[in-house]
Amino acid sequence: MTEWTKHNLLDIQNLTKEEIELILNTAKSFKEVSSRDVKKVPALRGKTVALLFFENSTRTRVSFELAAKRLSADIISISASGSSLSKGESILDTAKNIEAMNVSAVVVRHSTSGVPKILAEHLEPSVINAGDGCRAHPTQALLDMFTIREKLGRIEAIEVGIVGDILHSRVARSNIWGLTKLGAKVTVCGPSTLMPVEVEKLGVKVSYDIDEVIKQSDVLMVLRIQKERQQDNFLPSIREYAKHFGINKERLKFAKKNLLIMHPGPTNRGVELSAEVADGEYSVILDQVTNGVAVRMAILYLLLGTKETIEEKQTL
Amino acid sequence: MTEWTKHNLLDIQNLTKEEIELILNTAKSFKEVSSRDVKKVPALRGKTVALLFFENSTRTRVSFELAAKRLSADIISISASGSSLSKGESILDTAKNIEAMNVSAVVVRHSTSGVPKILAEHLEPSVINAGDGCRAHPTQALLDMFTIREKLGRIEAIEVGIVGDILHSRVARSNIWGLTKLGAKVTVCGPSTLMPVEVEKLGVKVSYDIDEVIKQSDVLMVLRIQKERQQDNFLPSIREYAKHFGINKERLKFAKKNLLIMHPGPTNRGVELSAEVADGEYSVILDQVTNGVAVRMAILYLLLGTKETIEEKQTL
Amino acid sequence: MTEWTKHNLLDIQNLTKEEIELILNTAKSFKEVSSRDVKKVPALRGKTVALLFFENSTRTRVSFELAAKRLSADIISISASGSSLSKGESILDTAKNIEAMNVSAVVVRHSTSGVPKILAEHLEPSVINAGDGCRAHPTQALLDMFTIREKLGRIEAIEVGIVGDILHSRVARSNIWGLTKLGAKVTVCGPSTLMPVEVEKLGVKVSYDIDEVIKQSDVLMVLRIQKERQQDNFLPSIREYAKHFGINKERLKFAKKNLLIMHPGPTNRGVELSAEVADGEYSVILDQVTNGVAVRMAILYLLLGTKETIEEKQTL
Repeated sequence: MTEWTKHNLLDIQNLTKEEIELILNTAKSFKEVSSRDVKKVPALRGKTVALLFFENSTRTRVSFELAAKRLSADIISISASGSSLSKGESILDTAKNIEAMNVSAVVVRHSTSGVPKILAEHLEPSVINAGDGCRAHPTQALLDMFTIREKLGRIEAIEVGIVGDILHSRVARSNIWGLTKLGAKVTVCGPSTLMPVEVEKLGVKVSYDIDEVIKQSDVLMVLRIQKERQQDNFLPSIREYAKHFGINKERLKFAKKNLLIMHPGPTNRGVELSAEVADGEYSVILDQVTNGVAVRMAILYLLLGTKETIEEKQTL
Repeated sequence: MTEWTKHNLLDIQNLTKEEIELILNTAKSFKEVSSRDVKKVPALRGKTVALLFFENSTRTRVSFELAAKRLSADIISISASGSSLSKGESILDTAKNIEAMNVSAVVVRHSTSGVPKILAEHLEPSVINAGDGCRAHPTQALLDMFTIREKLGRIEAIEVGIVGDILHSRVARSNIWGLTKLGAKVTVCGPSTLMPVEVEKLGVKVSYDIDEVIKQSDVLMVLRIQKERQQDNFLPSIREYAKHFGINKERLKFAKKNLLIMHPGPTNRGVELSAEVADGEYSVILDQVTNGVAVRMAILYLLLGTKETIEEKQTL
Repeated sequence: MTEWTKHNLLDIQNLTKEEIELILNTAKSFKEVSSRDVKKVPALRGKTVALLFFENSTRTRVSFELAAKRLSADIISISASGSSLSKGESILDTAKNIEAMNVSAVVVRHSTSGVPKILAEHLEPSVINAGDGCRAHPTQALLDMFTIREKLGRIEAIEVGIVGDILHSRVARSNIWGLTKLGAKVTVCGPSTLMPVEVEKLGVKVSYDIDEVIKQSDVLMVLRIQKERQQDNFLPSIREYAKHFGINKERLKFAKKNLLIMHPGPTNRGVELSAEVADGEYSVILDQVTNGVAVRMAILYLLLGTKETIEEKQTL
């Protein structure tokens, strides 16, 4: 059985297939914990987890916070506003100070690609990437893979369509790495202005025909359209986008019966998907949120926990 | 003995007299917990309470936070700024996401009347109204009733004067419902521009003579005057208000000997009451704050706790 | 053996030499706790510590927060923004409300000198000064003394140079009191516009020759230069300051072999010290951060803990 040996969680790329599966299996037993009456295990009692969110995020921050609390860890939370950063201190300085307070893990989100990697190179605590720039968002990809496996039983050979702003999406990037590694067939779809050059080299197909993609997919990952992109001239208009790529009930009439519609949240209802679809029969968006806590518990547990076998953990 | 059966705490109106008394009795034993050296019981260990405050409030938020912590619950706190709401997500979307993280209760404050009710209709966790618009603030009314009963031994037949901006006060509204249900005699008093039309239909008397109201009252609930109201033309000026309705030592010379002066806080000293009165012999304003924690512990316990009898809880 | 009897920690001045040593000794055993796998003791379980930070501070707030959490206390945190203060409530009102919620300690930082003392006069909980105006920052001085004693074995007869904006520095003031009380020889050094009138009366020497001070010192405390001071005409320019008083590698060539370079953080690299020096062989800046948590645990423990002997605590 695979043993966990990594010190940081920075990317999907540098995880082996076995390591991804170990995270997903561990998450499965932690999901069970969150469904109990007492949603808490003492696994990380007396350890400190620091949340360094230099970019706004309710969902991801709260998900990590709950994951840490349900493992009985202590938490310190630092956001960009109100931190020493406004006094001109560098991110690395802030992080070195946090490290000096004997924290066991630093969860970092930053709008600049590569910040988690730089921190990992300079810090002793485990660094967890909670999203960096347009580059990577590995815990999101892991919770997406967990959700697919839970709902469809497997990831291998599953047809996944990723729809939207592929160019700027760290969610797309991390999912492409993870899904292809686990044998899924991935097609990316979106306006050509939002399609990365030579994206096929990542092992995906490209389509500009959303109806075709819907028809063939077992899973449709709908990405959030950032309204700012319009000002940057990537998009003619939000309305145009919604018309050509927005997922609505009408478009889903040729969808497979067991289609899963996923979205990393927060959704722009009426833009990338209609309210009806977001709340509809195919949507597993809230399952993703639930699974996010379990996956993050698994990651914190594997990075910070003591060497116990999976069987021992399951008796927690 | 009354058993607790409600799933949410939205309003005073839909509580029976017996349910109100059950909350007050339960709060009494929790008040004792907060006076101990170890101010903590394990009652809600492993449960998660979410605080969704879409309106600024130190006092109420901290009071709920401490109540939850002293019951050993885990807490996640989301405020308007820094949440996904700034990304255009709806309140219900935010709440559904929080629900998906397996929280047991959602405590919500919002400037729009009816938001807690809407959440309760769509969420599985218990919803607790921590103040909505000008409509209701049930936990404030419960802590006020607790304080009256504690100080005067009963609520029935007590003369209560509520003074100030009755029109915009959720505190007044919830207290009127609760106090009349428990048999108190309520008189509301304030400028006619701040008096709701047909307020008598709520079972209260109306007076515009503050001296008369002071003379007859066992309890004087002084409401906070919001300075913004002046701009909205509800008030000629703050100074005028203070002159005609402000409670000062001079005015209290005909007060009953055991008068209680209450205020939901934060006080505007020199406006609705003088500093001397706020800190004076009749004031129970800080008792209200202390009792607020106990009442909120009781509510969280009754909504989320397992079925134990009051006697069992008292051995906690 | 000295017993702890103080109720508040407001200043270094009113601590005896023995009390300072008791804090440092207690901190030593708590430092050991923070190096364990389970960095937590149950000493303050069920007690509540309130953090009232009316001035921005990541470092100090997080340090106190971790100190309280590692003692198992519950924490409530109130900052200036988002508090009732924006509704016009006074600091004392806020503090009396917090007190009414049965907190055991109030940790306060405020830009006005004397605020912690005023709170202590009116509150029953222990008040801890986390920095007030330009006046005092006793926990910083205690962690600095802890660091010196840890690194050099003693404080008596040690030559300490304090360099920078002595006039506005609460760190300088508290360290001068503490270090001279413990027998260190202190020299202050900085631009004459930033030197308090008659500073010698505090028992220190004054020098305007930074090279001389570097040469003689066992410890160099480098203060943060606040860029705002330039606008206030205390400084010709930041560049001028850096040129004449900035600590860089060049300047350190005549330094003693075991020199300690300290800084209360956050550092302005390139202003009061170069990046090379901040990260260099003499720097103990991050040790200060680590020791800060231990010293604050000691203070909270001594103020709030029950009467146990030091020996008993050491078996925690």
